[in-house]
Amino acid sequence: MRRGIAILVVGMPGSGKSVFSEAARALGIPVVSMGDVVRLEAVKRGLSQDAKTIAQLAKTLREEGGACAVAKLTLERTPPAPVVVIDGVRSLDEVEFFRRAFEKVLVLAIHSSPRTRFTRLMARCREDDPKRWEEFVERDRRELAMGVGEVIALSDYVLANEGLSREEFLRLCKEWLNRVLTELRARTPNPGEGSQ
Amino acid sequence: MRRGIAILVVGMPGSGKSVFSEAARALGIPVVSMGDVVRLEAVKRGLSQDAKTIAQLAKTLREEGGACAVAKLTLERTPPAPVVVIDGVRSLDEVEFFRRAFEKVLVLAIHSSPRTRFTRLMARCREDDPKRWEEFVERDRRELAMGVGEVIALSDYVLANEGLSREEFLRLCKEWLNRVLTELRARTPNPGEGSQ
Repeated sequence: MRRGIAILVVGMPGSGKSVFSEAARALGIPVVSMGDVVRLEAVKRGLSQDAKTIAQLAKTLREEGGACAVAKLTLERTPPAPVVVIDGVRSLDEVEFFRRAFEKVLVLAIHSSPRTRFTRLMARCREDDPKRWEEFVERDRRELAMGVGEVIALSDYVLANEGLSREEFLRLCKEWLNRVLTELRARTPNPGEGSQ
Repeated sequence: MRRGIAILVVGMPGSGKSVFSEAARALGIPVVSMGDVVRLEAVKRGLSQDAKTIAQLAKTLREEGGACAVAKLTLERTPPAPVVVIDGVRSLDEVEFFRRAFEKVLVLAIHSSPRTRFTRLMARCREDDPKRWEEFVERDRRELAMGVGEVIALSDYVLANEGLSREEFLRLCKEWLNRVLTELRARTPNPGEGSQ
């Protein structure tokens, strides 16, 4: 039996994916971060957490286990629930993988301008965040090389995270989730107990 | 001297780029469509107007004249004006080309879900529009192969054209243009007569 509904979240670094995840958790929806799955794998392998190493590991995992290797690891860590959020999908291959694994898949793109994302990442200072514009551009290129742009272009929904405070965007995400889930539940009486 | 402000519009087929162009024209802003530039070239060469031929010609033009060949032809057809809209940019190379040609460049992505775009294209029936889902998916792939997804991912603004009537989206585009141009003019007293 396939699982219920998966909301796949795609966005460039610093676009606000983690705020969306926070909104989902606040509404009781489990969230699995594909980035965290790779970072955990780095810890297991005794590797460092900087962006280059993580990107290299994501690449290695795909070379070792195929285009959907990270998606597979992510699915193993996804709890059974009627609705889950999977944060950080990076290619159309991964989207297809999740489409096969779930009854229904929605792809949500979170968008912010490069300038806004750069400003946010400079303020965030996570270990794998870029410290200079050149690093930022390089990291963007790595993400695009994996296929993030194609997933954004073919997404079902897009939320613009521009000119909003963190709190305002958090509220927008909660509103979006409530609206979309209400619509879905109206159409699918028992998500997770679908026809297949 | 470089030209003034260019608003580059990117979007997958059927996302609503032409509605945005209509909004720009209604506000007196000249619009040049990169698709029209290629279609005109097809007419000159006595070729047909179907999507495959147009896509093949766009590819041939780039092979003959470099990644920015269509952008160059487009620039030749762009009237001198403080603000212009260039519709249908397809790669980061083209964005860079226009950045060198204009004082200021804004990249605007227009987004609709695949399902909405397909429905619209079926209703539109332009000669080069897909007639079946498979053709639609194939055309999407050709667009993505040119780099449309990367331009969308790195755009400065995104407008979602979902669940709106044509008139509602037209109004949204006009509001967006008025807001952005007011902001730009406040910062740049004489766009088109910049410092370089």
